[in-house]
Amino acid sequence: MSAQADHATSAQAALLRQRYCSVRERTEAIAAPLSAEDCCAQSMPDASPVKWHLAHTAWFFETFILERYLPGFRAFHPAFRMLFNSYYNGVGEKHPRPQRGLLTRPSLAEVTAYRRSVDERMLALLARTGAAGELAALTELGLQHEQQHQELMLTDVKHLLSMNPLKPAYADAPSIRYDAAEPDAGAPGWVAFDARIAGIGHEGAGFCFDNELPRHRQFIEPFMLASRLVTNRDYLAFIDAGGYRNPALWLSEGWDWVCADQLAQPLYWRHAASASTGKWEEFTLQGMQPLDARLPATHLSYFEADAYARWAGARLPTEAEWECAAMASTGLAQLFGACWQWTSSSYAPYPGYVAAAGAVGEYNGKFMVNQYVLRGSSYVTPAGHARASYRNFFPAAARWQCSGIRLATSGNG
Amino acid sequence: MSAQADHATSAQAALLRQRYCSVRERTEAIAAPLSAEDCCAQSMPDASPVKWHLAHTAWFFETFILERYLPGFRAFHPAFRMLFNSYYNGVGEKHPRPQRGLLTRPSLAEVTAYRRSVDERMLALLARTGAAGELAALTELGLQHEQQHQELMLTDVKHLLSMNPLKPAYADAPSIRYDAAEPDAGAPGWVAFDARIAGIGHEGAGFCFDNELPRHRQFIEPFMLASRLVTNRDYLAFIDAGGYRNPALWLSEGWDWVCADQLAQPLYWRHAASASTGKWEEFTLQGMQPLDARLPATHLSYFEADAYARWAGARLPTEAEWECAAMASTGLAQLFGACWQWTSSSYAPYPGYVAAAGAVGEYNGKFMVNQYVLRGSSYVTPAGHARASYRNFFPAAARWQCSGIRLATSGNG
Amino acid sequence: MSAQADHATSAQAALLRQRYCSVRERTEAIAAPLSAEDCCAQSMPDASPVKWHLAHTAWFFETFILERYLPGFRAFHPAFRMLFNSYYNGVGEKHPRPQRGLLTRPSLAEVTAYRRSVDERMLALLARTGAAGELAALTELGLQHEQQHQELMLTDVKHLLSMNPLKPAYADAPSIRYDAAEPDAGAPGWVAFDARIAGIGHEGAGFCFDNELPRHRQFIEPFMLASRLVTNRDYLAFIDAGGYRNPALWLSEGWDWVCADQLAQPLYWRHAASASTGKWEEFTLQGMQPLDARLPATHLSYFEADAYARWAGARLPTEAEWECAAMASTGLAQLFGACWQWTSSSYAPYPGYVAAAGAVGEYNGKFMVNQYVLRGSSYVTPAGHARASYRNFFPAAARWQCSGIRLATSGNG
Amino acid sequence: MSAQADHATSAQAALLRQRYCSVRERTEAIAAPLSAEDCCAQSMPDASPVKWHLAHTAWFFETFILERYLPGFRAFHPAFRMLFNSYYNGVGEKHPRPQRGLLTRPSLAEVTAYRRSVDERMLALLARTGAAGELAALTELGLQHEQQHQELMLTDVKHLLSMNPLKPAYADAPSIRYDAAEPDAGAPGWVAFDARIAGIGHEGAGFCFDNELPRHRQFIEPFMLASRLVTNRDYLAFIDAGGYRNPALWLSEGWDWVCADQLAQPLYWRHAASASTGKWEEFTLQGMQPLDARLPATHLSYFEADAYARWAGARLPTEAEWECAAMASTGLAQLFGACWQWTSSSYAPYPGYVAAAGAVGEYNGKFMVNQYVLRGSSYVTPAGHARASYRNFFPAAARWQCSGIRLATSGNG
Repeated sequence: MSAQADHATSAQAALLRQRYCSVRERTEAIAAPLSAEDCCAQSMPDASPVKWHLAHTAWFFETFILERYLPGFRAFHPAFRMLFNSYYNGVGEKHPRPQRGLLTRPSLAEVTAYRRSVDERMLALLARTGAAGELAALTELGLQHEQQHQELMLTDVKHLLSMNPLKPAYADAPSIRYDAAEPDAGAPGWVAFDARIAGIGHEGAGFCFDNELPRHRQFIEPFMLASRLVTNRDYLAFIDAGGYRNPALWLSEGWDWVCADQLAQPLYWRHAASASTGKWEEFTLQGMQPLDARLPATHLSYFEADAYARWAGARLPTEAEWECAAMASTGLAQLFGACWQWTSSSYAPYPGYVAAAGAVGEYNGKFMVNQYVLRGSSYVTPAGHARASYRNFFPAAARWQCSGIRLATSGNG
Repeated sequence: MSAQADHATSAQAALLRQRYCSVRERTEAIAAPLSAEDCCAQSMPDASPVKWHLAHTAWFFETFILERYLPGFRAFHPAFRMLFNSYYNGVGEKHPRPQRGLLTRPSLAEVTAYRRSVDERMLALLARTGAAGELAALTELGLQHEQQHQELMLTDVKHLLSMNPLKPAYADAPSIRYDAAEPDAGAPGWVAFDARIAGIGHEGAGFCFDNELPRHRQFIEPFMLASRLVTNRDYLAFIDAGGYRNPALWLSEGWDWVCADQLAQPLYWRHAASASTGKWEEFTLQGMQPLDARLPATHLSYFEADAYARWAGARLPTEAEWECAAMASTGLAQLFGACWQWTSSSYAPYPGYVAAAGAVGEYNGKFMVNQYVLRGSSYVTPAGHARASYRNFFPAAARWQCSGIRLATSGNG
Repeated sequence: MSAQADHATSAQAALLRQRYCSVRERTEAIAAPLSAEDCCAQSMPDASPVKWHLAHTAWFFETFILERYLPGFRAFHPAFRMLFNSYYNGVGEKHPRPQRGLLTRPSLAEVTAYRRSVDERMLALLARTGAAGELAALTELGLQHEQQHQELMLTDVKHLLSMNPLKPAYADAPSIRYDAAEPDAGAPGWVAFDARIAGIGHEGAGFCFDNELPRHRQFIEPFMLASRLVTNRDYLAFIDAGGYRNPALWLSEGWDWVCADQLAQPLYWRHAASASTGKWEEFTLQGMQPLDARLPATHLSYFEADAYARWAGARLPTEAEWECAAMASTGLAQLFGACWQWTSSSYAPYPGYVAAAGAVGEYNGKFMVNQYVLRGSSYVTPAGHARASYRNFFPAAARWQCSGIRLATSGNG
Repeated sequence: MSAQADHATSAQAALLRQRYCSVRERTEAIAAPLSAEDCCAQSMPDASPVKWHLAHTAWFFETFILERYLPGFRAFHPAFRMLFNSYYNGVGEKHPRPQRGLLTRPSLAEVTAYRRSVDERMLALLARTGAAGELAALTELGLQHEQQHQELMLTDVKHLLSMNPLKPAYADAPSIRYDAAEPDAGAPGWVAFDARIAGIGHEGAGFCFDNELPRHRQFIEPFMLASRLVTNRDYLAFIDAGGYRNPALWLSEGWDWVCADQLAQPLYWRHAASASTGKWEEFTLQGMQPLDARLPATHLSYFEADAYARWAGARLPTEAEWECAAMASTGLAQLFGACWQWTSSSYAPYPGYVAAAGAVGEYNGKFMVNQYVLRGSSYVTPAGHARASYRNFFPAAARWQCSGIRLATSGNG
C-alpha cells in the first residue's frame, strides 16, 4: 500500500473511531436526565427499559464483533449474552421480553461499566484493524442499530412517564422539543406526480439496511401527495366530526380496536382538567403541555391514519409513492424530522431480497408480516440516520412511536 | 325497444332466474347431508354454523335487493335483519359473531322457509324487472356472495366435524373428494417469466368483485413459478427435516405462533393411531383417511407456507406474479381447483380503488389490513366462481381454508 | 329367607324399578319441548347441552353399574365412555367441557337410543338382583345424580335461550312456572334461635350424599333468620339505592366482578324496551315477562347476596344456622321449592368426612374449595330430591342457578 | 389526674413513641440492602415494589391519623393520597395495582423524605396527645399494619429476585436466614385433643385485628395434630411418589392449576444445573442454595398443602383446631417462626363480627371470600407480631408467601 493510501485508510479509521465515540456518547446523553429507577422500568411488553437499551446496544458489539474478531475474547459477564439478546434465535436463549423490567440487577452502574468495557475493546480493535472489510461494516451496522435504539429509548421512556399519574417531564432539553423542531407548515396543497417506472430502494455507496435492497423497478400510477403533514388542528376536526364513532371510516379490524379500548383521541391527548370543555393537552417529553394546533398530529396508529385519510377523502401513500416523491421532493415540507409517516404498504421483501447469513441476518427479514411501513423520520430520530429509502415498520395498532399522516390521492388532478 | 332486443333481454332475464335457482339449490345441496344439529353448531369464532350461512345468504338478497326494490316490502321476520347481518355496519346492529352457534332458534326448518320466501319474492321481482341495471348487478353480486359462502359452509363444517372425537364424515359424495379432483401432478419444474409492465386486475365485461379493480399497471421483475403445487410428500420432507423446530425458517410472528400452539404438522394431519411410527392420516370430508402423498398439501397457514418456501430455497409469489403467470399459463398445473395458493402480498387496494356507496360497499375494502392474498381456487370452490384476477384473502394464521403452496423465485434462471 | 321377607324384598325391588323408570322418564319429559338444535348447543363452559345431560346420566349407570355388574357387558359405543365423562379422572379421559356443544354427533336420536339401551339393561339387572346391597345403593345414587342434572338441564337451557335475541320460551308448562310455585309470602319477620350444640348432617336411613356426613356437633351462637326470602321488590330498593355503585357494600372480589362486567341488575332482568323508565322485565322459562315484585329475587350471585345483606344491615346465614332452623322450622316460609339460598359457608368437608373409594368418590369431595353452600331447593328441583341437610354449592360469581337470599343476623333480639 | 397516673400515662406515651420509632426503623432496615432499582420493580400484580410498601405504610399514618388529628394538616404531596392508597375505596381513587412498578417517580429518596415528614409529624402529635384513646389505637393499628408490610416486603422482593436469571441474593443478614431460624424438628408424632367447646378468638387487653373478634364458642370434635411441620424431605417423598401427576390427590380446581402451569415442584425449587439427577436447589433470600431436607417445606399453595395431606392419609387442620391446640400447645413444635400453616378454613367473619366504621373498616372484612386462613407465623414475620388467634389469609393458589403444612386427622387415636 502506498503511503498516500495508507494515510487515507488511517484517516478513515480515525473517522470511524470518532463516529463510534460520538454515537455511543449520544446514547448515554439520552439516559443522563433519568434516574436508575426511570431506566429500569418497562411500561408494556412492546417497550423496553432504558437500561436494557443501554445494555443491548453494547451486547450487539460484543456478540457480533468482539466475540468474533477480538483475540482472546472473554465475555464481560457470561449471563449477558442471554439477558440482553433481543430476538436473535441464532445467538441462543433470550430473556423473555415482557420481563425486561424485572432486571433490577445488573444495576445501571454495572451496565454503564459494561458499556465502558465494550467501548475500550472496540476502540482497541478498530485501532488495530482499520476501517475496511466486514468488521468495519459490522461496526457501522452496530452504530446504525444503536441510533435506532436511541429513538426507542425516547419513545419508550415517554410512554413510561405518561403512565405515571404525576405526568413527570423527561427533561427540558430544547434539542428534543417537538415544537422547536417544527414551525407551522403553512396551508396544505397537493403535489402531483406522473406515472413512471421508478427505481426503488437504496442506491449508492452509503450505508443502508438490507431491507432497502435490492434496488428494483416499480410502476407507479399518477398520484398526488400533500405538501405537508396533517396537523393537530386538522385531526381535531376529524374528532369533532365524530371520527371515532363512525365505523364507516375505519378498517374492520381498526373499528374493533377502537371499540375494545373505547378510544376517542390520540394516545397522549387528554382533556385539560382545569379548563373549559374542548381544551386539550398533550403529554410530551416536557410533561403535559397545551395542545399546539399547528404541529403535525403524532402518536397515531395506522388505523387512525387510515381512518383520517378516508374521512378527508384521500388515502395514505404507498411506500413507493413516498420514496419517489421524496427523491423529487419539490414542494413537500416535513419529509424528515417531524414525525414518521404511515404508508399503506405492508412491510415486505423487495424482489430479490436476501437476508445476511448468520444470526445478524435476523435483523429485518423475519419481521416482514403484519407490519406497515413508515417513511421519513421524526424529531427524535438521530441526525443523519434517515434517508429517502429508509423503511421503518410497526404493527397497525402501534401508537407509542412518533407517527403521523401525510395524505395521498390517486390521479394527478 | 325492438322485438329482437326485447327477445334478447327476455332471454337474458330467463338466464338470470335460472342461474339464481341453480346457485341457490346448490347451497341447499351442500347442507343436505347434515342434520339440524350439524347445521347449528359453531366450532370457533372464525367459522359460522351452516344454518347461519343458509340464512345470511338469504338475508343478503332480502336486505340489499328486496327491501329496496320490492314494492310493499315486508321483512320475513323483523329480527332477522340483525341476526343474520354478518358485518355490515351500514345496515345496523349485528348479532355477535362468536355467538352464532347459540341461535337454536330460528330452527333449520324456519331458515329453510326464510330461503323459500326470499326465493319466491326474488323470482317474482326478477320476472318483472328483467336482467339489466343495478338490480341485476346486485342479484349477480348476491349469487357470487352465495358461492363464497358455499365454500365456507364446507370448510366450516369440516372444521366442526374435525373437533368431534368420533371424526365423522360429512358425506361420501365424490364431487367433493379432494383426491378425485387432483391426480398426481408429476415432477416439479420452474416456469420462467421475463420482466414486464403487466396489466393487473380484472378486464372485460364479466363479473368481478370491486377489489379486482381498477385494472392498472405493475412492473414485474423476472421471476419463476413452480409448475405444480407442493405435495404432501414434499411437505413431509420439511417436517422430517425438523421444519417445525427450526426458528431460522420462520417469520418471527410465525415462530411465536408455532411455539404458542406447539404445532408440528398441518391442521388436519395426525399420526395414525393403529399404525407403525411415521404413518399419517388426514381428516377429510369423508372422515379420517390415510395421507395421500401425491396430493397437494393443504390447510396450511401463511406462516407454514412461508417457512416451507424458505426451507426449500424459494419464496412465495406476489399476487401480481401469480396473475401474470396465470394469464400466460403455459406449463403451470393446478392453478385452479386443487387448493388456494398463498401469495406474499398483503391484501391492499389497487391504485384508484373505490368501494361501492352504501352498506354493500363494506364488502371488501374494510378488510384490507393484516390479511394475505390467496390466488387460484380450491376443490370446494363452486365451478365457474374463480378467475385469474380473483383475490381471496385470510389472516396469516388461518388454516381451516383449503390453502396450499406454489413456490416462486426471483430471476429467470 | 322366609316367604314374607322374600315378598318384602321383591316389593322393594319392584319399587326401585318403578322409581328408576319414573326418574328417567322425567328427564326425557324435560327435554321433550326442545328441538334437537336446542339440545345440542352450549351457552358457556359452565353449562352443558341438554343432549349431553341426557347422555351423561345414562353414562353414569353404564359406567358405574352395568360395566361392573352386568355379565358379558359390552359398551353401547366405545367412545361414549370418554365423550360423556364429566369429571371422573378415575374413569380415564374426558372430552373437554367447553367443547360439549360441538358434539353434533351422536345425534339426539342416537342418545335417546343410548338411554333406551341403558334402561333395558338396568331393568333386566335390577329384576335379577333385587333392591339390596351396593348395586341398589349405586342405582339410587345414579337416580339422585340424574335428578341433579334435571335441575341443571332447566337452568342451562334457560341460560341458552336467554342468549338468543329472540328470547324464546322453553315451554308454557305450568309445573315449572316460578310464579305458580310461589305466592306472595307476606311481611317479613325475624325468627330467633338460642345458642346450642346442634347435630349437623344427615340422620336416619334415607338417602343422602356423602357430603352430608358424618353427622357431627357444632356450637351455634344465638341468631335470627328472616321468615321469608328477599323479594324482587326488596331487591329493587337495593338497586334504586345505588347498591351496584357503592363499593362499601361489596366484598373486594365482588366489587371487581361488578366493575369488570359493569353489572347493574340480576342476570335475567332488563329494562322493558317499550315501557316508561323504571319498568323491568325478567327472562323466564316462559320468555320475557314483566317482573313480579312479590316473587323471591333469584339468579343472584353470592356477591350480590352478600352485598344486599350488608345493605340491609344483616348477613347471610351459615349453613349450620340454616340447617338448624330448617329442622325446627316454625315460622320460616319458602325453605324449599322457591329458590336456593346462599349461605356464608364455604363448601368444606364435615369433620371425619371420607369420600367413597374409586372413581365414584370423585362425586363431591374434590370440589370443596372456593365454592359456597346453598341450602333449600328451587322451583326446578325435582320433587322429593332435597332435604334440610342437603348441600348445594356453586362459585361466588355463579348466577345462572335459581339462587336467592334469606337474611340472618347475630344475637337473638 | 393524680401525679402518679400522670406519670404512668407519660411513661406509656413514651413507650408508644419508642415503639413507633422502632417499628419504622425496622422497615427501613429491610429496604437498606436494596438499590433504588430493586425497590421500584414489581414482579407480578399480587406483589408490590418495596418503595411502594415504604410509601404506603407512611400513607397509612398520614391518611388515617395526621389528616384527622393534626391541626393545620397539609399533605406532604397531594397526589400521594391516590398513588399510595392500596384498596381503601372510602379514601377515594387508587393507582391501579398492576402498575405500581411503573412509579419511577417519586424517587426512593423522595419516598424516604415522605417517611421522615410523617415521622416528624407523628412524633410531634404523639408527644402532645399521649398514648390513650382512638389516636393511640390507630397508631398501634398503623404499626401492626406496617409489620404486616415488613413481611410482604421480604416475600415480594424474594419473588422479584427469583425472576432474575442471575438469581441474586437479597442479603446475607443471618437474622432472616430460614435455616438459622429452624433447626431439625425431630421425628413427627401426633398430639391428640378431646372434643370440647372451645373459646375461639382473641382474649384479653393486648392488640388484635378486628377479624380475631368477637371471641365466641365453637364445638370441636376430637382431632390430632402433627407435632411438627412437613419437611422438605417429607415433601420430596410426595414428589417422588408422583404427587404432581396423580389427579386423585388434588382438589379439582387444584388439578386444573397444576395442569395449566405444568407444575412439578414448589415455587422456589429447581433441579441443580451442575449436579447429578435428583439434586435440588432452592431460591432463598441468600440466593440459590442446596435444598436442606430437614427444614419445613415452604412456599406451598393451599392446593399443594391439601394434596400432600391427602397423599399422607391426613388432612389440614381447621383454624379452630389449630388455635385450640396452640393455646394448649404441649408437644407442638414450630407453631411460630418457621412458616405459616395452611388451614382448611375459608376466611370468614366470626359470629357477630363488625368491621370498624369508615375507610379503616376496609382493613379485613371485605376480603372474606375465596381465601384460606393460615395460622402461626414465619421466619420473616416481625418478632412479637403474631399470636395464637392471629388470622393470616391468602387465595388457594398463592405460593409466594412462607406457607407450609401441619397435618391433622380426625378422631383421637
